[in-house]
Amino acid sequence: MGYWLCILAITLVSMAYVFYNYGAIRKMDEGTEDMKELSAIIRSGADTFLKTEFKYVIIVVIVLAIIFTLLVEVTSGITLMIGAAMSSFVCVLGMRSATFANVRTTNKAKETLSIGETVKVALCGGSISGLSVQAMGLMGLILILIIWNGVSAEATSKGLLTGLPCNPTITRITTYSLGCSIVAMFNRVAGGNYTKAADISADILGKIRHDLPEDDSRVPNTIADFIGDNVNDIAGNCSDLLESFVATIAATLMIAVTAYNNYGSTVTADTFKATIMFPLIMAGSGLLACLIGLFLANVRKMSDDPSRELNLATWFSAGITLVMCLIASLFVFKNVPLYETFKFGWISPWISSVLGIISGIAIGSITEYYTSTEFKPTRGLASIAHEGEAFVVTKGDAIGSRSCLAPVLVIGIALFVSGRLCGTYGIAVSALGMLSFVGATVSIDAFGPIADNAGGIAESCHLDEKVRAITDRLDAVGNTTAAIGKGFAIGSAAFATVSLIVAYVSNYTSAGSEPILNIASYVVIAGSIIGGAMVEYFSALLTDNTIDAAKLMADEGDRQLSEPGILEGTKKPDYNRMIEMAANTAIRKMLIPSVLALFIPVLGGFLFGVEFVGGMLIGATIVAIPRAIFMGNSGGAFDNAKKYIESGAIVGSEKGTPAHKAAVTGDTVGDTRKDVVGVALDIFIKTMSTVANSMATVFVHIRVFK
Amino acid sequence: MGYWLCILAITLVSMAYVFYNYGAIRKMDEGTEDMKELSAIIRSGADTFLKTEFKYVIIVVIVLAIIFTLLVEVTSGITLMIGAAMSSFVCVLGMRSATFANVRTTNKAKETLSIGETVKVALCGGSISGLSVQAMGLMGLILILIIWNGVSAEATSKGLLTGLPCNPTITRITTYSLGCSIVAMFNRVAGGNYTKAADISADILGKIRHDLPEDDSRVPNTIADFIGDNVNDIAGNCSDLLESFVATIAATLMIAVTAYNNYGSTVTADTFKATIMFPLIMAGSGLLACLIGLFLANVRKMSDDPSRELNLATWFSAGITLVMCLIASLFVFKNVPLYETFKFGWISPWISSVLGIISGIAIGSITEYYTSTEFKPTRGLASIAHEGEAFVVTKGDAIGSRSCLAPVLVIGIALFVSGRLCGTYGIAVSALGMLSFVGATVSIDAFGPIADNAGGIAESCHLDEKVRAITDRLDAVGNTTAAIGKGFAIGSAAFATVSLIVAYVSNYTSAGSEPILNIASYVVIAGSIIGGAMVEYFSALLTDNTIDAAKLMADEGDRQLSEPGILEGTKKPDYNRMIEMAANTAIRKMLIPSVLALFIPVLGGFLFGVEFVGGMLIGATIVAIPRAIFMGNSGGAFDNAKKYIESGAIVGSEKGTPAHKAAVTGDTVGDTRKDVVGVALDIFIKTMSTVANSMATVFVHIRVFK
Repeated sequence: MGYWLCILAITLVSMAYVFYNYGAIRKMDEGTEDMKELSAIIRSGADTFLKTEFKYVIIVVIVLAIIFTLLVEVTSGITLMIGAAMSSFVCVLGMRSATFANVRTTNKAKETLSIGETVKVALCGGSISGLSVQAMGLMGLILILIIWNGVSAEATSKGLLTGLPCNPTITRITTYSLGCSIVAMFNRVAGGNYTKAADISADILGKIRHDLPEDDSRVPNTIADFIGDNVNDIAGNCSDLLESFVATIAATLMIAVTAYNNYGSTVTADTFKATIMFPLIMAGSGLLACLIGLFLANVRKMSDDPSRELNLATWFSAGITLVMCLIASLFVFKNVPLYETFKFGWISPWISSVLGIISGIAIGSITEYYTSTEFKPTRGLASIAHEGEAFVVTKGDAIGSRSCLAPVLVIGIALFVSGRLCGTYGIAVSALGMLSFVGATVSIDAFGPIADNAGGIAESCHLDEKVRAITDRLDAVGNTTAAIGKGFAIGSAAFATVSLIVAYVSNYTSAGSEPILNIASYVVIAGSIIGGAMVEYFSALLTDNTIDAAKLMADEGDRQLSEPGILEGTKKPDYNRMIEMAANTAIRKMLIPSVLALFIPVLGGFLFGVEFVGGMLIGATIVAIPRAIFMGNSGGAFDNAKKYIESGAIVGSEKGTPAHKAAVTGDTVGDTRKDVVGVALDIFIKTMSTVANSMATVFVHIRVFK
Repeated sequence: MGYWLCILAITLVSMAYVFYNYGAIRKMDEGTEDMKELSAIIRSGADTFLKTEFKYVIIVVIVLAIIFTLLVEVTSGITLMIGAAMSSFVCVLGMRSATFANVRTTNKAKETLSIGETVKVALCGGSISGLSVQAMGLMGLILILIIWNGVSAEATSKGLLTGLPCNPTITRITTYSLGCSIVAMFNRVAGGNYTKAADISADILGKIRHDLPEDDSRVPNTIADFIGDNVNDIAGNCSDLLESFVATIAATLMIAVTAYNNYGSTVTADTFKATIMFPLIMAGSGLLACLIGLFLANVRKMSDDPSRELNLATWFSAGITLVMCLIASLFVFKNVPLYETFKFGWISPWISSVLGIISGIAIGSITEYYTSTEFKPTRGLASIAHEGEAFVVTKGDAIGSRSCLAPVLVIGIALFVSGRLCGTYGIAVSALGMLSFVGATVSIDAFGPIADNAGGIAESCHLDEKVRAITDRLDAVGNTTAAIGKGFAIGSAAFATVSLIVAYVSNYTSAGSEPILNIASYVVIAGSIIGGAMVEYFSALLTDNTIDAAKLMADEGDRQLSEPGILEGTKKPDYNRMIEMAANTAIRKMLIPSVLALFIPVLGGFLFGVEFVGGMLIGATIVAIPRAIFMGNSGGAFDNAKKYIESGAIVGSEKGTPAHKAAVTGDTVGDTRKDVVGVALDIFIKTMSTVANSMATVFVHIRVFK
């Protein structure tokens, strides 16, 4: 109980600091009238989007909460709603703070012409998202533990209507995680559609149907694109990582319960308590570390090297986290009997967590290698562009596929080693290691779109060249740091899902027997190949949705452009109509894929049973990991190859040449891949696994084909 | 012993009929001097290719044979060589007969102007490939059974150097299958590279670098493209399906052994004999049925509806097979005690085999839906072409991904049902059901490229419009029937691999315990995600190889075109140099990916053990099945969308418009996907599984990380 209150206190202090910063940002000056107007359009567009989306989210969450309360466990509906509420709150807060911070970042650059001061504003805006992700995610969990008195290995309870027994302490945590999942799922699917439909339709109008310069303000679709950055990169990313963070803690707790139930004889109740305590202390000390790191970044004088400053904030937080976790590992595990699977005694869990962090960095670096203009793959892609569109696309496909192996080897080897060090508990702890300083990584992630928007505002409001130079510098840094962030996102999703699957198998395995999912049995193997194909189908749905929405928006843009005065620039296009249309289309198209992710494991479970669903989860994970990497990296390589060509680095392939046109085609193909499909696949498999975990005990008892 | 000799006799009669047809084809007239010259170039180019390739194949096979003899089992090197020899023989025979039959098909059309007569020649040529695939594959297996006295559940033996015990009757069959695998692997990888590098380089030269009409004979790359059709579609396809056929029988026999070892108490040795006898009788009666079906097609007068004639030949063969298998099932299983897993008694295996056939047809029909110009997906793709290249590629990606779900559902449900009907034995028998009339399906498959080449010869030799009309008709029919063939190829590969994996697990499981591969253990899950990423990496290698080879060949073509007289048409380009270059490049680039497929499971096994490899196989299979479908169907949809546009069906998007240009880009992107990567993925997973099966007992004993 004592350490719960400690952690709760840390989350409260963090949120107090978050609100202090939020107030500080709001108080800053917004700059010229032009800047105020533009930022108001972006803010209100983003608000409208979230409001419309949350109407649907609320309905889905309430329906699910009722179902869970009736069928699974009495209190699980409430915990599900708490999860959804926490995640929604963070999204709204993060997005509002980002849309306040962007224009103030521009204005700070304009007023001070100092890189350091400008970085500070953007990072302060980003830290509101980052810290609240970790603080609110953890706060909800701790509150649940305090209200219902923690995690027990033996507790049983049942739903209001059904009499199927389950462990309520586990079910509450999985449904809390599911609540976070649902918000993240809807955000990612709708946000990706919104931002890319706007982006691609602006391209179609500008480049294919009319012959207009890029980002021309006469095309109403461009402003929707602006808003999309906040919707997908802030709200989507916040809820996604919040979900990963919560799901990983949940998986660690579930595995701790199973481990205790299965090997009860060699260990004591103290061991169980220790394995429950450790992940919570890790998460709490990570939050404290991020708070310290970001506070220091906020108060000290910043140099003019933004990259150094951002890295400093991240690695400082990570370093403090590591030291605190080492102390926690000693304190928690030193004096209790340990499982045989802990190969190096009390330090084993800590080594696993370090392994997770190293894997995250490695995956990030590999991502950078394949997608940055500094290295061979992307340069090679750019240099082949003069052979035409087909070559660019095919070569980009090859880069994407090739880039899967190294990150997956890192993940696979890390899984293997942490499994050997600490059993399956070690795998979950590795994942948590990666996510323990998620507050800092999300802060840096959120820095990117704020800087990007700041630059856009500077451009649109025709500010001085010098201001633009500063925001450009920030934007470029944001792109590089994003690679590492992506590495942590993919790596942690892979680890989290594996932990969730192991937890799932453990959840339905009766106490005392080893958790086994036999993939050499026809039930599991049938489930696994179907699960794998589901990932492809889901990708297809998202891709088609984006194309359809882009066509719709391009047609609307065309209609507006054909009105007299618009093309001549004497009359402003109807931005609001376009923004509303984009939001409505995206949200309408969000429903089917999202509900699919929730519904498919449930259907599979009721039809073919608990092992079939286990197969589905495994299959979906095995396919989704390389697919997500493929989508992200091929998209990144396309994007940067175009930028490389536009920088004039390849003689004979400058802007305006057929080679440049081919590179633009590649970039547009990559847009859907990296910003719609790639980012949604992670949350797809996590949601499937979380739903399955929440229902595991039900599948065991109710099944059509016995 | 008796039924072995019966089956041997059927294979011998089939081969006698094959040689009779081969002689008959050769005796036919080749037509004009032009036709003779062109067909001679194609034939000698194809011969050169195979000769160069087989030099490498022989080395790899001999090295492997020595390794297996020393390390695994004394006789396994010999059986491996027998497998490679059988497959190579069929490739040479099939390719020679196709290169004889193509020009004679053209000439028959020219002489008779009768569709029926022309179909007969092409089908007769195709049946040489088809029947020899089934006859030679089966003959080798039966010879091994006769020489070493069948399959025993208890036999043990060991390698010359090592003392690791294994069941030699199993090892001989797996290594025989491995021999077939190696040839198929090399054929698919090198053949795909050859044909598509030629095709794409011809496109680059004609469409991007110079402005020449399609298939212009001044471009030397076009003739290599001609040869490539025979290399990939005849030799590649023959060895691929021969491998599937053999691997499926092998898997059925292995599973029969395990089933007997594990449930020995409720059944007798007669049951074991029956489960060994049934797959062999199925394969033999299927061959007999195909022989009858194709003989009748050859002797009766054909109508002028080629589609009807080809379907008749296939379904007649399938029908006889089904009836004979039903009788076999009754005869074999009626009077022996059965396993409990046989839910409907003696008829259960037969129902499983029917399920396999139905799945094959269903997958074929789904393939046709997604790729034919008759249906919505491909038409939709064509109608979006005016929005530009990026839209075409993205939409094609979506069609490919979307098309994965239905076939995989069919496979998954069929696996589930046959597993419930007959246990894992049922899964293997389902696969064998699909492949039991492989002689007929391969004959129809081979009809396609023969008709295609015949059309090309008619065009190049400027024959009469009427002749061209007939060959065009045949070509169109070949494309449609190919869809069903593809369905069987993909479906059977999936079933065969699943059977092989189950057999693999059974192979290392000690007698009496249930074969379990626990994917909830960290070792297996680490292996499975790495196996999945291997598939992506393999795809990337093949794609890159094709692009690189195409660039190389385009540069050579450019060099030749720059010589005085070539572009003017007064001097012929150096076809031979181009053909040789294509062959050498393709074969050089074949080595790394092929050796990878052989080496990776071995490395994984020695490092991380037998279960890690099991995980790798599962992971590779789960990823490869949807990827292969994606590659084939997106490629097919691109190809046919282009054809649809060229047919003038979409007003405003005719040949020469930007929409057509975008569709051509899609087609080129699809070329590598469908003809290089897609067809190679099946054989990739089968080869990995076969190698692993041959080495399973070794991995159990030798392992670095214990």
